[in-house]
Amino acid sequence: MSENKIYKLVEIVGTSDKSLSDAIDSGVARASKTLRNIDWFEVTELRGRVNKGRVSQYQVKIKVGFRLDE
Amino acid sequence: MSENKIYKLVEIVGTSDKSLSDAIDSGVARASKTLRNIDWFEVTELRGRVNKGRVSQYQVKIKVGFRLDE
Amino acid sequence: MSENKIYKLVEIVGTSDKSLSDAIDSGVARASKTLRNIDWFEVTELRGRVNKGRVSQYQVKIKVGFRLDE
Amino acid sequence: MSENKIYKLVEIVGTSDKSLSDAIDSGVARASKTLRNIDWFEVTELRGRVNKGRVSQYQVKIKVGFRLDE
Amino acid sequence: MSENKIYKLVEIVGTSDKSLSDAIDSGVARASKTLRNIDWFEVTELRGRVNKGRVSQYQVKIKVGFRLDE
Amino acid sequence: MSENKIYKLVEIVGTSDKSLSDAIDSGVARASKTLRNIDWFEVTELRGRVNKGRVSQYQVKIKVGFRLDE
Amino acid sequence: MSENKIYKLVEIVGTSDKSLSDAIDSGVARASKTLRNIDWFEVTELRGRVNKGRVSQYQVKIKVGFRLDE
Amino acid sequence: MSENKIYKLVEIVGTSDKSLSDAIDSGVARASKTLRNIDWFEVTELRGRVNKGRVSQYQVKIKVGFRLDE
Amino acid sequence: MSENKIYKLVEIVGTSDKSLSDAIDSGVARASKTLRNIDWFEVTELRGRVNKGRVSQYQVKIKVGFRLDE
Amino acid sequence: MSENKIYKLVEIVGTSDKSLSDAIDSGVARASKTLRNIDWFEVTELRGRVNKGRVSQYQVKIKVGFRLDE
Amino acid sequence: MSENKIYKLVEIVGTSDKSLSDAIDSGVARASKTLRNIDWFEVTELRGRVNKGRVSQYQVKIKVGFRLDE
Amino acid sequence: MSENKIYKLVEIVGTSDKSLSDAIDSGVARASKTLRNIDWFEVTELRGRVNKGRVSQYQVKIKVGFRLDE
Repeated sequence: MSENKIYKLVEIVGTSDKSLSDAIDSGVARASKTLRNIDWFEVTELRGRVNKGRVSQYQVKIKVGFRLDE
Repeated sequence: MSENKIYKLVEIVGTSDKSLSDAIDSGVARASKTLRNIDWFEVTELRGRVNKGRVSQYQVKIKVGFRLDE
Repeated sequence: MSENKIYKLVEIVGTSDKSLSDAIDSGVARASKTLRNIDWFEVTELRGRVNKGRVSQYQVKIKVGFRLDE
Repeated sequence: MSENKIYKLVEIVGTSDKSLSDAIDSGVARASKTLRNIDWFEVTELRGRVNKGRVSQYQVKIKVGFRLDE
Repeated sequence: MSENKIYKLVEIVGTSDKSLSDAIDSGVARASKTLRNIDWFEVTELRGRVNKGRVSQYQVKIKVGFRLDE
Repeated sequence: MSENKIYKLVEIVGTSDKSLSDAIDSGVARASKTLRNIDWFEVTELRGRVNKGRVSQYQVKIKVGFRLDE
Repeated sequence: MSENKIYKLVEIVGTSDKSLSDAIDSGVARASKTLRNIDWFEVTELRGRVNKGRVSQYQVKIKVGFRLDE
Repeated sequence: MSENKIYKLVEIVGTSDKSLSDAIDSGVARASKTLRNIDWFEVTELRGRVNKGRVSQYQVKIKVGFRLDE
Repeated sequence: MSENKIYKLVEIVGTSDKSLSDAIDSGVARASKTLRNIDWFEVTELRGRVNKGRVSQYQVKIKVGFRLDE
Repeated sequence: MSENKIYKLVEIVGTSDKSLSDAIDSGVARASKTLRNIDWFEVTELRGRVNKGRVSQYQVKIKVGFRLDE
Repeated sequence: MSENKIYKLVEIVGTSDKSLSDAIDSGVARASKTLRNIDWFEVTELRGRVNKGRVSQYQVKIKVGFRLDE
Repeated sequence: MSENKIYKLVEIVGTSDKSLSDAIDSGVARASKTLRNIDWFEVTELRGRVNKGRVSQYQVKIKVGFRLDE
């Protein structure tokens, strides 16, 4: 059983004032500072903030997945 | 009880021929013409139209939230 | 009953290293090679791959809808 | 951005003592009195009331969508 | 606390070869034989059977709710 | 393992100007032209179009299931 | 196989004019009159009634779980 | 068809620094200032804000339903 | 209407220390002691207990369906 | 855009009288007869049939994903 | 990209023998011992334990969100 | 408030080439190396990989729950 790969998921919210995709990039980049070997992400929520009638921040909630060392 | 802030949500569909993010921008901009003080948005559906094998319109359904005056 | 329009949906995953919107475009373009008259798409899942701390691939699962001939 | 079409959704519950379809018809007809140019509807819930062992009212919750003027 | 009304829900599948609404009617009618005072129903699933290219049975899963005696 | 029955599902949208049930009938009838032995259907979405304040088209998205030959 | 514990769930709606928590208490108390050994509950829906601009009844739909005798 | 009752739902977020139930009360009270005859509410989301390690605001998203005049 | 078949669903949790499938078997076997003619089951939740770093109990929540006598 | 990988999903129901895992195996094996290069599967529903108080068939609905040729 | 704010979510279950709101308070208070700057919470599940026909423990599953340092 | 028990959930993906149950076992066993006192698990997703027409890896996403020390 010990040879099976195991992964962990951590949920974060990436933000950006440019686009949904850039918000994901930001979140993944920040998560990579402390989590080694992030392998994939899954989007769980899209939202954002509005200021003076314009989108001021795209917020993308994602789960990032990475392999656990044995 | 009367001093608690209360917010209202209105559901719209923003569209764009450029990108998902631009569709959100369009919807928020239009909603801001008649709703004062929109504060945030939540995406509830992503879809679009296809014409001659190409995406002709991104459609993003969002709820926009704004504070109600007391 | 025979004069009612009937549509079919096919589920695909479009990918891109640029953006979520581009991943949809790729999927729709590929699907259009074999499916005539795609009319709309619906996004059912957003995810992607990460490589060396950066998003290397946006993956957008979509259902593409098209009218069936009678 | 201003030339993109924007739609709004309003949620109502149509009712009927005849059928689910008739409940939708009732809701759409009533909504059309105050909302111009309703274009489509989406069913979000089906329920109803029972009286003396018989269905006395079909209730269909729908969102009606219509285009906002520019 | 004892004076609060309490309701119970029981899940059934009504069927009909005529329509979705008739399937609900059938289910409610049968449930009323053993459950007194059914007050409302909530639809949780719509499906059915097909035979020789035609719908032979509409199946509507519903929860019926009724007040419990004190 | 080879003796186990395997089924496939195909997603379609049936339409009708009469009722939800008729929209399902239409979809099933059309699907049966090309798919042998459809056995059951599952409704996944109910929506429709509105024209001049009246429902002009009921749209029922269904998955039709049929047994695969061995 | 016979030594495995088996549990049953029954769905009820508890109500209260005081609070959500009190509505749960009411439902559990009433269910305990006829069901022995209720062990846990799961909330599946929160709603209520409004009268003259005030909440007159909190309604909490719960599933109560209890062990079946062997 | 015109004699069927039709209801409308409006989505709001009530807040309170006391409890979830009080947040619902606040939202319903505020909505009642502009919407006549609110009849029921449905909770769609529970969240809140935290300040210095303590809950500073319970936020309850609800849909309030009321009958439309004919 | 009286000749339509009607089914009822009852929700239980089967458990096993061996496997998910065995937990289903246990639940179905126990339910069959008091419910005649169970026809099918639907899994609604998978969970379990852990003891000293090992799964000590698989818990499978299922709805069992059976035909009601007329 | 043409160099992006595109995947397609097809939904099937695998069955087995042994276990949930074996039902998945059966479905995948059958799908592989006509679909080249299946890469992954996603479970969307677990259910089954009961006969004389015992599980006679585990049914696992899965989507199988495979890469489309360019 | 580095100047965008990034948030992390951690899922906990707060408990209380008093009320749902108190269970949230407990969870937030405990989480704040090890997580700096918790900003918001989102409720994902409500359940609890019952003992001798009375609710002995409200359990509220929440995600707490906090900003990550850069 | 401080005496209430608080639990934390961590999401992992266990894998196995044998069965769904074995994938859960693997995930729980690995998580137990670093998390003391895991008490329960909840399955949130079932999927897997296919190689040459055969399931090569069952992947079970689970949340493991454990009590936090006071």
